[in-house]
Amino acid sequence: VDFQGLPGGRGDGRISRVPWDGTTPWIRTASRQQRWLVGVSGGADSVALLHLLVESGFRDLVVCHLNHQLRGEQAAADAAFVADLARSLGLTCEVGTADVAARIASTGESLETAARRARHEFFKTCAIRHRCRRWLLAHHADDQAETVLWNLLRGSHGLKGMRTEQKMCVDKVTLHLSRPLLEVRGADLREWLTARGLPWREDASNAVPDVIRNRLRLEIVPRLTEIAGRDAATMIGRALASCRDLEEIEQWAIAQARALDPQGRLHLPTLRSLPLPLQRAVLAHFLKQARIPQLDGDLITRALTLIDPTSPPAVNLPGGGALRRRAGRLLIERLS
Amino acid sequence: VDFQGLPGGRGDGRISRVPWDGTTPWIRTASRQQRWLVGVSGGADSVALLHLLVESGFRDLVVCHLNHQLRGEQAAADAAFVADLARSLGLTCEVGTADVAARIASTGESLETAARRARHEFFKTCAIRHRCRRWLLAHHADDQAETVLWNLLRGSHGLKGMRTEQKMCVDKVTLHLSRPLLEVRGADLREWLTARGLPWREDASNAVPDVIRNRLRLEIVPRLTEIAGRDAATMIGRALASCRDLEEIEQWAIAQARALDPQGRLHLPTLRSLPLPLQRAVLAHFLKQARIPQLDGDLITRALTLIDPTSPPAVNLPGGGALRRRAGRLLIERLS
Repeated sequence: VDFQGLPGGRGDGRISRVPWDGTTPWIRTASRQQRWLVGVSGGADSVALLHLLVESGFRDLVVCHLNHQLRGEQAAADAAFVADLARSLGLTCEVGTADVAARIASTGESLETAARRARHEFFKTCAIRHRCRRWLLAHHADDQAETVLWNLLRGSHGLKGMRTEQKMCVDKVTLHLSRPLLEVRGADLREWLTARGLPWREDASNAVPDVIRNRLRLEIVPRLTEIAGRDAATMIGRALASCRDLEEIEQWAIAQARALDPQGRLHLPTLRSLPLPLQRAVLAHFLKQARIPQLDGDLITRALTLIDPTSPPAVNLPGGGALRRRAGRLLIERLS
Repeated sequence: VDFQGLPGGRGDGRISRVPWDGTTPWIRTASRQQRWLVGVSGGADSVALLHLLVESGFRDLVVCHLNHQLRGEQAAADAAFVADLARSLGLTCEVGTADVAARIASTGESLETAARRARHEFFKTCAIRHRCRRWLLAHHADDQAETVLWNLLRGSHGLKGMRTEQKMCVDKVTLHLSRPLLEVRGADLREWLTARGLPWREDASNAVPDVIRNRLRLEIVPRLTEIAGRDAATMIGRALASCRDLEEIEQWAIAQARALDPQGRLHLPTLRSLPLPLQRAVLAHFLKQARIPQLDGDLITRALTLIDPTSPPAVNLPGGGALRRRAGRLLIERLS
């Protein structure tokens, strides 16, 4: 197999034994003066994040731990471990409890949905109580690889993963999530902790066990690494970065296409002059801006039939209303 | 796990038992009048392709089989099987023999490289002998998924796979390769053959066994399918299609950026006005048009330093010459 085409040296994804230097661009550049909320499950990843932040001079950290009450005594021991850790570091600690089982019973939500919503409410509660909208999460490169594969299997448009910086709105409260470790391998975090003799709780996890995600992380990513002889999480991260570059270019192209007329309607002659994938992107962007729900590839395909002047002049939109062709323009007719 | 967000019905990647209808857009629309060279190893994929073509009314087919002489008696039996099959269908048959082992001994090429070059020479020889530049190859969706994963692990820029239509140049002879089955699942081809009682050679393959590729196809893709409960090859194909749409938009954006001046030099103020990923794309395109070898991300990063007017005014290029900043332009200085 010809893997020689790749640049050599470090950073090419080959599995190296060079120890990680214990920092990331985010950690190097973020403000030490601000307060940050840190999600700490007690597992290696979040324990490493917390120690890294403290070592790097962050002082105003609030350690936040949510007990989902799904793992009985183990979960209580996780919470106690995190509280002890925070105390030993001289940090404020917030331990929340969510009754996910009761939530499922009352709402009929799936386990995953109920746990996610409980987590987001905890995010909000801590944000308000500690007057801080900034959360730090310990997701790392292996989590990212798992997420990319998971989205791929769900039919993602290209490759989709987590962002280092993400805005999230919970009940009208806007939170800023940051993931300082998103490009660090999980094994490097564990090595870093081990080298310092720092303990963690082996099975602690903020997340509810998700069979598919777990199998992607524990079976597929290591198997890909073994087969290729290079770190699969690194390679997946690299392909994701390329896709994001392409998506940024797509956004520029949508703006550059100038397909909106002064009234904010889509100008059909302009739309027709674009290559098909850009027609689809412009149309998707137009419908998204209008907050049309259930936007998917099928809807775009149906909407795009309007580009042909001999086709029926309107396409129904989900949630009522229609996309209508009139005088060489496309416009959205809402239900009145 | 919330897989409900996907559109239901057929075509969503869920593993369905709806039998394949035995045709593809390529087969429906391609010319029955023209001659086509068909690569037939004797394995299920290429045997299915050949029968499909004959059933669909293609008449002027030349069955081409290359014996790599790497599998001894088995390979001879494959060649005999293919020759019999061609005879039974009333088609011309061309059986070639490549001494890959001798080639390796004389050139020092790797097994994969030697086999690939031998195959390409066979493509050319058949093309000249039968006065036909059009080759049909039996690659299917599982091969495509394997290729996408393989490229991903090698560090591909986004997702990269095979094309349904591809031009290839062998010793100044331009060949047109078509892959009519690229969106059909391997299992569907086998079922189609089995339903008709059509035999094939189980282990026949034009390709040299490639450990990494084989493991991706035989271990990873089925495991992903089993984990997700939907056909992984289909989902990978869909993500690939999305990436290709983005790449087509990128090409439009490069042209739209109009960063070349009338003398064909890169106009720096224009380049600076673009988002960073598009700056990189424009620069890569510029260097590629100039046939600069060894174009990779590192070279683009170094070349992009020229955008800063206070940086050193030239960057060396592989193969000699330099990229130079002069009067607000970038130009390529060749070795004289």
